[in-house]
Amino acid sequence: MPGEFEVIRRYFEPAAESGRGVQLGLGDDCALLEPPEGETLAVSIDTLVEGVHFLPSIDPEDLAWRLLGASVSDLAAMGAQPLWLTLAITLPEADESWLEAFSRGLLAATRACQVRLVGGDTTSGPCRILTAQVHGSVPVDQALRRSGANPGDLIFVSGTLGDSRAGLALLTDLPDSAGSLSEQAYLLQRFLRPEPRFELGLALRGIATAAIDISDGLLADLSHLLNRSSVGARVRVEDLPLSTALLELDSQQLAREWALSGGEDFELCFTVSPQNSAKISKLAERLNLSLTQIGEVTRGQGVQLTSGNEVWHSKTPAGFDHFGGDR
Amino acid sequence: MPGEFEVIRRYFEPAAESGRGVQLGLGDDCALLEPPEGETLAVSIDTLVEGVHFLPSIDPEDLAWRLLGASVSDLAAMGAQPLWLTLAITLPEADESWLEAFSRGLLAATRACQVRLVGGDTTSGPCRILTAQVHGSVPVDQALRRSGANPGDLIFVSGTLGDSRAGLALLTDLPDSAGSLSEQAYLLQRFLRPEPRFELGLALRGIATAAIDISDGLLADLSHLLNRSSVGARVRVEDLPLSTALLELDSQQLAREWALSGGEDFELCFTVSPQNSAKISKLAERLNLSLTQIGEVTRGQGVQLTSGNEVWHSKTPAGFDHFGGDR
Repeated sequence: MPGEFEVIRRYFEPAAESGRGVQLGLGDDCALLEPPEGETLAVSIDTLVEGVHFLPSIDPEDLAWRLLGASVSDLAAMGAQPLWLTLAITLPEADESWLEAFSRGLLAATRACQVRLVGGDTTSGPCRILTAQVHGSVPVDQALRRSGANPGDLIFVSGTLGDSRAGLALLTDLPDSAGSLSEQAYLLQRFLRPEPRFELGLALRGIATAAIDISDGLLADLSHLLNRSSVGARVRVEDLPLSTALLELDSQQLAREWALSGGEDFELCFTVSPQNSAKISKLAERLNLSLTQIGEVTRGQGVQLTSGNEVWHSKTPAGFDHFGGDR
Repeated sequence: MPGEFEVIRRYFEPAAESGRGVQLGLGDDCALLEPPEGETLAVSIDTLVEGVHFLPSIDPEDLAWRLLGASVSDLAAMGAQPLWLTLAITLPEADESWLEAFSRGLLAATRACQVRLVGGDTTSGPCRILTAQVHGSVPVDQALRRSGANPGDLIFVSGTLGDSRAGLALLTDLPDSAGSLSEQAYLLQRFLRPEPRFELGLALRGIATAAIDISDGLLADLSHLLNRSSVGARVRVEDLPLSTALLELDSQQLAREWALSGGEDFELCFTVSPQNSAKISKLAERLNLSLTQIGEVTRGQGVQLTSGNEVWHSKTPAGFDHFGGDR
């Protein structure tokens, strides 16, 4: 394996371009960074483990996109402007073609996500493990927290839900005949190269009362938001935004199940007061991104899920494990 | 394994006390932090892999100290005030007694190092892997970089060198009879619970022209500093600061070898102009920490190592692999 410094120099310097607020990047004991004056720093650290969070066979370029997508999504959920990335990589061996492809994906993904690589550590270990920390900034008191939702607020989600879970299924247990080639490609793209909604997060400053990104699944993440806000919610299953590709892959029932519990969509779920709902329609148009109202915040706790005349209640997302029957 | 949130709540909230500049710690998509106004942010990320950087048998409390010591040492080397810590932990199983001991060590180590835990991620994986990112601050233009050393500057190191390598040897290949019990305890402590020299780093602002922490070994780390400063150095082997415990463990020759190449001492190596040397003596007294001049910065490149009338030259630390003969 080439030495640590060699690895950094050869593969990761391209992603470490000088950029906003970078006084000193790779090559010293620390990176030196200048946060925007008068703003709050938002940081989040995430680990992806081979065999747990990604398949050993994943294209390293896709892996870089997934890592960045998942990490920057946390900044999006806070309304923070992405700034910097640090990256700790553990690898079992010096696979130069892997490093070459991964760093190529990393360069493209950092540019798309507006972050600069400013520091890192490379180590050897039993399997591939990637830890990314992202750093962003947000004006003081404008961060979108999980804790600000009020009874009567409307609940929105961006984009469509369940696509990422369907992409995973295509890679693992669905027959090749499921869906058309273009639908398969769309769903795989949604799983492998999630697009963090940081532009939406920035636009929601001053509008959303609370926000979270959908990483564990809508019900799980909405529940986190509700718990932190000490409120409940009513969600209409019929209003869940589902892509055509997802609906044509299998049954509507499975599509809804994946939309509720699939995870890794990296869309935003946010709440706004009713008087701001017109702003959301305009925002959707400006960003060319669907923003769909799926329910309302209520007093009490837990999610009341309605489908036609049927109603489920739950205090915890686990209570929905059997939603949708036997599948 | 208890869920991620349960692990965080039960074991790591004690280390996540509210503190300097922490607007929001654990429990949202990001931590929200306020860097001191008008200061530069210094960040460093480091990974420790079981079986590579630490023995599986290590006491989890010691592991927390080593992780913090190694990480905060990078802040010390930049002259940065430690502020915040994020921590990504990969574990093969939910070993509650391990988590309990690790979090106890973490709490004590974060307090000693003046950092607050503000974020984290817990994942499952094939072995224990810990990634820590530390964040500190330093007034603009006062950071101690590797790149500021000038020919004629004096080279100093803090504390004593080689102790950590001796501590490792006691755990692995030295007979139990080597050294007295109190000497063994001292050397083990130096290896297992390194004390990052952040107070020294803070005091060297405006005095040192360049600095680095000794993680890879004096020769390797001094070489990094010299390379970044485009200078060389002359180092006298007789002036290397060696502890009594190290000298009594084995031969003087082995002690010097470990002092030069042992690594993980987490002392600081720094350069000062000759007119500031009196300040260093006063500083040593104030901090109750030995600060020893071991050589001078020269024009050219590489390290000239002298011992009595003998002189070795090298452009790279690898050139000293056989220093000291057959051992």
